[in-house]
Amino acid sequence: MIGTFITLEGIDGCGKSTQAELLRDVLEERGKDVTLVREPGGTPISEQIRAILLNPENRDMDATTETILMSASRAQLTRQVILPSLENGTDVICDRYADSTLAYQGYGRGLPLDWLEEMNEFATDGKVPDVTILVDIPVETAMSRLKGKTFDRMEEEGHRFLKRVRDGYLTVARKFVDRYIVVDGTKSVDSIHQEIIKKLEDV
Amino acid sequence: MIGTFITLEGIDGCGKSTQAELLRDVLEERGKDVTLVREPGGTPISEQIRAILLNPENRDMDATTETILMSASRAQLTRQVILPSLENGTDVICDRYADSTLAYQGYGRGLPLDWLEEMNEFATDGKVPDVTILVDIPVETAMSRLKGKTFDRMEEEGHRFLKRVRDGYLTVARKFVDRYIVVDGTKSVDSIHQEIIKKLEDV
Repeated sequence: MIGTFITLEGIDGCGKSTQAELLRDVLEERGKDVTLVREPGGTPISEQIRAILLNPENRDMDATTETILMSASRAQLTRQVILPSLENGTDVICDRYADSTLAYQGYGRGLPLDWLEEMNEFATDGKVPDVTILVDIPVETAMSRLKGKTFDRMEEEGHRFLKRVRDGYLTVARKFVDRYIVVDGTKSVDSIHQEIIKKLEDV
Repeated sequence: MIGTFITLEGIDGCGKSTQAELLRDVLEERGKDVTLVREPGGTPISEQIRAILLNPENRDMDATTETILMSASRAQLTRQVILPSLENGTDVICDRYADSTLAYQGYGRGLPLDWLEEMNEFATDGKVPDVTILVDIPVETAMSRLKGKTFDRMEEEGHRFLKRVRDGYLTVARKFVDRYIVVDGTKSVDSIHQEIIKKLEDV
């Protein structure tokens, strides 16, 4: 018995972390063992990497360094948590995974997609999610939701950057249509949650 | 005017860091501007990555994570220090560089060499050293030199691992014979230094 691997993607402020928690609760109510992790992070080593990535003092970080650090966090999380959990029959919900690298570093920062896909393959040991939920919202909605919040290094990005990331996600979702569920993140938390549950049953 | 890019390689305890400093001193005496850096590290971000790599508590670190973290440190060092220095006419001496990944993670840990070469190319932006000095010593010599020292995570490795790394370095040196200088690290510090200086003049 192998667990189901579900990832959530979307730009910051889209509400995917809330949806990840609601989804976990439903699966647990149904009697499943569920592990919920977030990227970057999810293991002690990955959290140390996360701290470097999000430290606002690390302004000199090159886009290539950022990409590779994300992948290092992912490699550790995959091997230490995701693969053993799935093999153990536990469902895994991951708040961001390899497609974040395509959207942010590829479409957002302009790094070569073919290289990023190879990097993802290596970091994930070739593991692809069974289902990926894209919580899609317009950049304006995301930015107004995030206002007033203290921004970390990754969030101190402009509107145009986030627009490229959002469009990148939609492109990735079209490319991997078989495993993608796209939901409208401007709806209420509960209605998005119900839509996710319904679409998951159709998968 | 472009600076010369010199890297030093070898297993821990071979004496390459001492040789790097002696080489810097000679080049500076000759009126050159020289930047000496070490890997992993050499920039504030790379030093943060180094701290994760060498922390003895991070025993769960997967070999893939280790490889990718090394590359992240290298990517930042290359773009923030090495390339700008060389373009500015400054010579750069680097204590370990991309060939360490081939020797340690490739030959030592058995990760696929073709992938590591691609990773190196991406991390270094394709920059290859003008000269690489391999300070070669038998594993027994290295281990007896390191005895009594507190070992960091990377050095807590067995004899067989280091043997594979040493042999791997010699293989890499044969492959890239045009840029490699191999010196016998069992000789005295001064005689190794003189040999390096002489061979550098022949390059």
